[in-house]
Amino acid sequence: MKRFQHVSDLGDLRTALAEAFEIKQDRYKYQELGRNKTAMLIFFNNSLRTRLSTQKAALNLGMNVIVLDVNQGAWKLETERGVVMESDKSEHLLEAIPVMGSYCDLIGVRSFARFESRKDDYEEKIMQQFIQYSGRPVFFMESATVHPLQAFADLITIEEYKNKTLVEPNPLFGGEAVRRTLNKRPKVVLSWAPHPKALPQAVPNSFAQWMLAAANPQTGIEGGMDFVITHPKGYELDPLFVEGATVEYDQMKAFEGADFIYAKNWSCPGVTQPENYGKVLGDYHDYLDWTVGERQMAVTNHAFFMHCLPVRRNMIVTDDVIEAPTSIVIPEAANREISATVVLKRMLEAL
Amino acid sequence: MKRFQHVSDLGDLRTALAEAFEIKQDRYKYQELGRNKTAMLIFFNNSLRTRLSTQKAALNLGMNVIVLDVNQGAWKLETERGVVMESDKSEHLLEAIPVMGSYCDLIGVRSFARFESRKDDYEEKIMQQFIQYSGRPVFFMESATVHPLQAFADLITIEEYKNKTLVEPNPLFGGEAVRRTLNKRPKVVLSWAPHPKALPQAVPNSFAQWMLAAANPQTGIEGGMDFVITHPKGYELDPLFVEGATVEYDQMKAFEGADFIYAKNWSCPGVTQPENYGKVLGDYHDYLDWTVGERQMAVTNHAFFMHCLPVRRNMIVTDDVIEAPTSIVIPEAANREISATVVLKRMLEAL
Amino acid sequence: MKRFQHVSDLGDLRTALAEAFEIKQDRYKYQELGRNKTAMLIFFNNSLRTRLSTQKAALNLGMNVIVLDVNQGAWKLETERGVVMESDKSEHLLEAIPVMGSYCDLIGVRSFARFESRKDDYEEKIMQQFIQYSGRPVFFMESATVHPLQAFADLITIEEYKNKTLVEPNPLFGGEAVRRTLNKRPKVVLSWAPHPKALPQAVPNSFAQWMLAAANPQTGIEGGMDFVITHPKGYELDPLFVEGATVEYDQMKAFEGADFIYAKNWSCPGVTQPENYGKVLGDYHDYLDWTVGERQMAVTNHAFFMHCLPVRRNMIVTDDVIEAPTSIVIPEAANREISATVVLKRMLEAL
Repeated sequence: MKRFQHVSDLGDLRTALAEAFEIKQDRYKYQELGRNKTAMLIFFNNSLRTRLSTQKAALNLGMNVIVLDVNQGAWKLETERGVVMESDKSEHLLEAIPVMGSYCDLIGVRSFARFESRKDDYEEKIMQQFIQYSGRPVFFMESATVHPLQAFADLITIEEYKNKTLVEPNPLFGGEAVRRTLNKRPKVVLSWAPHPKALPQAVPNSFAQWMLAAANPQTGIEGGMDFVITHPKGYELDPLFVEGATVEYDQMKAFEGADFIYAKNWSCPGVTQPENYGKVLGDYHDYLDWTVGERQMAVTNHAFFMHCLPVRRNMIVTDDVIEAPTSIVIPEAANREISATVVLKRMLEAL
Repeated sequence: MKRFQHVSDLGDLRTALAEAFEIKQDRYKYQELGRNKTAMLIFFNNSLRTRLSTQKAALNLGMNVIVLDVNQGAWKLETERGVVMESDKSEHLLEAIPVMGSYCDLIGVRSFARFESRKDDYEEKIMQQFIQYSGRPVFFMESATVHPLQAFADLITIEEYKNKTLVEPNPLFGGEAVRRTLNKRPKVVLSWAPHPKALPQAVPNSFAQWMLAAANPQTGIEGGMDFVITHPKGYELDPLFVEGATVEYDQMKAFEGADFIYAKNWSCPGVTQPENYGKVLGDYHDYLDWTVGERQMAVTNHAFFMHCLPVRRNMIVTDDVIEAPTSIVIPEAANREISATVVLKRMLEAL
Repeated sequence: MKRFQHVSDLGDLRTALAEAFEIKQDRYKYQELGRNKTAMLIFFNNSLRTRLSTQKAALNLGMNVIVLDVNQGAWKLETERGVVMESDKSEHLLEAIPVMGSYCDLIGVRSFARFESRKDDYEEKIMQQFIQYSGRPVFFMESATVHPLQAFADLITIEEYKNKTLVEPNPLFGGEAVRRTLNKRPKVVLSWAPHPKALPQAVPNSFAQWMLAAANPQTGIEGGMDFVITHPKGYELDPLFVEGATVEYDQMKAFEGADFIYAKNWSCPGVTQPENYGKVLGDYHDYLDWTVGERQMAVTNHAFFMHCLPVRRNMIVTDDVIEAPTSIVIPEAANREISATVVLKRMLEAL
C-alpha cells in the first residue's frame, strides 16, 4: 500500500479485517518488519488518540518514530511560486516537504480543514503536496476531508461487537447486563448531533465511505449491513463519500431497530449551500433534541453507542448513554492501535 | 507493585536499596523485562529532571516510552457529570483517561497542587482519577502532595554518602578536601528556606515520609537515623506525612551536628491556618536569615548539602554552600535515574 | 572525538569523507555501537532539519534519543554567581547543565547568536558552559558562530557532485538535462544574498572554515578546490573563519566559471564596524540584485546551487534557479543525516 486515504486503498475488506484480528491477538507479530525503518508523524493540529495510537502501532512493528509538531501559527510555509518571500513565511513547502521525506521511510500527516476555501479543503491541497513532493508513502492521520485510521478502527469494532447478544456491565461505570436480539444484517446509523463550534466533516465522510464499502454484499463484510445517515436538513455530506447511502431526516425513525449508533457533529458541508461551508447552521441550542439520549436509544435494538472522541457530554450524548454497558467508545479508541498497526504493516510491506 | 505513591508501596526499604545499588552497578541488567512494554509519561506541568530521568529509566529497562505534554491551559478536561459541555472543555476525563490507558502498560503522571482547594489537592483528585479510570498501574511523577521518585533518590543518596568521612574537592568548583566525623546514626535535617513564590508541599511531604520510614530501627535502613524538621511557625507539614517527626523551630539548633541538610521551600500547608493554604506567609525578605549559608553549615558535622533542584541560589542556599565539596545536589539528581529504574522494574514485574 | 565544533575536530578530511560514503552505503552498519547509549538533543531554538536528521543519525547507530526543547522565553537560567535569584530565573545553569549531563552519554546543543553582545556570541558563552559543566562530550547543532553538521554535509555533497558532468532533470520540477565541463579543481563560491531579517553568521562561518580546510592541497580533499567569498562591503566575516580566503566584492566576477554556488544571507559580523554587529546594513530592497538568479548563474560552469535551508525564494534565490536540475538543496539536506551519523559514530568510539 503506497497511500492510505480511502477505504479502497486497503483492498479486500475481509482480508484487512482478518489481518486486524490477527494483530489484535499478537500485536508484536510483525516486529521484524519495521527494523531500521522510520515513521515520521507530522501534526499540523492537536492530537491525543492519533498521536498515541500511531506511535504505539509503529513501535509494535519495531519501527523508529519521529514526531514533529508543526504549530500552524509558528511555522508558516509559503505555497505559491513567484512570491518574494519577505513576510513572516520563512520556508517554502517545495523545500520543506522533500526534506522531511529524506529522513524517513513513511510519512503520516494530520492537517485539518481550514474552512477558508471549500475547494482547497476538498481537493486536499496540503496532503496532495505531501504526496507529490515528499517522495515517501503517505498515510492520512485526519485530513481536511477524511480520517481513515478512525473509520478502519470503527469497522473493526463493529465487526467485533456485531454478534454480541449478551453485554456485560461496563467495568468503569457498572450498570446491568443487557440482552440483545441478533440481527443477521446489523443496522448501523450515523447520527449528526449538536455542537457549539464548527467541526470538519472528515470523520463522518470516512465513516460513511467505509460503511458503504462494508455494506456491499459482494465486496463488503460477511453478511453485509444496513447503513443509514440522519441529520437535519442542510448538513448533507458530500456525494464523494455518501453516494448511494440512505438518508433519513427523522432521527427517531433512523434509530428504529439499530444495532450501532455512531454519533458525530459536523458543520455544513456546503453541498447544497456552498456559502455555508464550514458553518454551524442556526443556533445549536435549537438542535439539543438531537443529543443522543435514552429517548432515542429506547427504539434501537439495545444498540451499541460509538463516537470517535473527544466527545462533549450532554451535547452529543448524555452521561447515561455514554456510561451504559452498551457504550463501546473506549474499546473503539483502543482499536485505533490495531487499525494503525495494519496500515503501517501494509505500507512497510510495499516499501 | 501496582502503584507508586507512598514509601509503603515499595515494601521493605533495605531490599529496595539493595536493588537500587544493584541497578546502579549495571543499569541495563533488566533490559529484557520491558521488551514490548510501553510507559506513558503524562505531564500536566513542566519538568526537566523527572522527564529526562524517567525516560532514561524506561529505556534502561528496554521499554518503549511515549511522552505526552498536556498544557493545562490548552487541554481542559471536564470532570463533573451532568454538565452540558458547551464551554472550552472539549473532553471529559472519563473518556480521556481510559483512552490513554489503552495504548500503554504503565502510566506516570505529573500534576502539581493547584492551590484552589486544599481538599482537592490533599485528596489527590487528579491522580485518583488516573488510578480509578486508566486501567493501568500508575506511578506519581510529582503530584499535589507527594514526589516519591525524588524521595527515593534522596534516600539512595543518603545511604551512599552516610559513611563517607573523606570528601574530595568538587569536580566542578574545586575547594578543599573535607574530613568528617562518622556518626553511627546520621542526623538528617529538613530545613525550610525562603522563596519569592508559593511552592507546593510535595517534596517536603515525601522527604519526611521517607525519612521517617528509614529512621525506624526495625523496618528502616541499617542503623536508622535521626530526622529533624525545621521551619518558621505556620509552615507545619500535614500530619499525614510528618506524624512523629521532631520539629525544631530554631534553625541553628536543628543544624547542630547534622550530617545531611536538605533545604527546600514550601508554602503554607494550611494545617493550623486552613485559610492560608498555598500562601507565602509575610514578606519573604524578612526570612532571608533562613537561607542556608556558611553560618548554619558551620555548626553541622561538615554536613552534606541536598536539594531536589531547581534551586534559587542566594535565596534557598548561598553560592558557597552549593558549590562546596560537600554539596551533593548533582549526584542526588543523577540518582533520579536509579530510583525510577527500580520503580519501573517493580511495576513491570507485577504486570 | 570529544567535541564537534570546528573542522579540525574531525581530523583528516579524506578519512572522514570515506567514512561518510561508507555510511551512506549502509547507514545501519554501526548499529551495535550505540547500544545502551543515550544522546540528549537540547534545543534552545527552533529546528527542522537538525532535529530530524540528528535523531535519525542517533537511531541509525542504535542509540536512545531524548529531545529537550527549551523555550528561551519560558525557562530562563541564571548565569551569574552572587545574584539573589528572586526574579523569573528559577534555575542556575551551574545546576541545570550537569544534571542534563548525568542522564546521557552525548549532548548536542542548539543555541543561536543572541546579538546582545558580540563578545558573548563569539566566545560561545552558552556552549562553553555545556563543555565545562556537563561532564559529557558535546556536539554543536548550530551555535552562535558555527554550524559544523551543516558544513560537513555541504562538503559531502560537493564531493559527491564535483565530478558530475551530466545532470538529469530534477525529479520534482523537471527541466532539461545539463552537460557541464569538468574542472579538475572545482570552484566553490559562497555568495551573500539579501534577507529582510538579521541572521547569524554561523552557517557562512562554518562553510568558509570547512571549504578552506578542504581546499588545502596537502590536507584537504583529493585535488583541492578554489574557494571564493562574495558579499557587499561591510559584511566581512570574522578572520577566525576566513583567514586566507579570497574575497571578491563583485558578485558577477566571483561567479565566473564557478562549479558550486552556495547562497546565504548573514547580518553584519561586526569585524570592521563593531557597532553594527548583528544588523542588516541599509535597506534590503537596495540589495535585491544580489538575489541569485539566471543572470548570475549564466556566467558559471552550469554550477550546482546549494543552500542550507530554510530559504526565502525570490529573496535569496529565484524560483527558476532553485527548481533547476542543477539545484541540489534537497540532496544536500539529506546529507545532514550522513554527517550527523559520522559525527555521532566518532563520539561513541571515543567514549
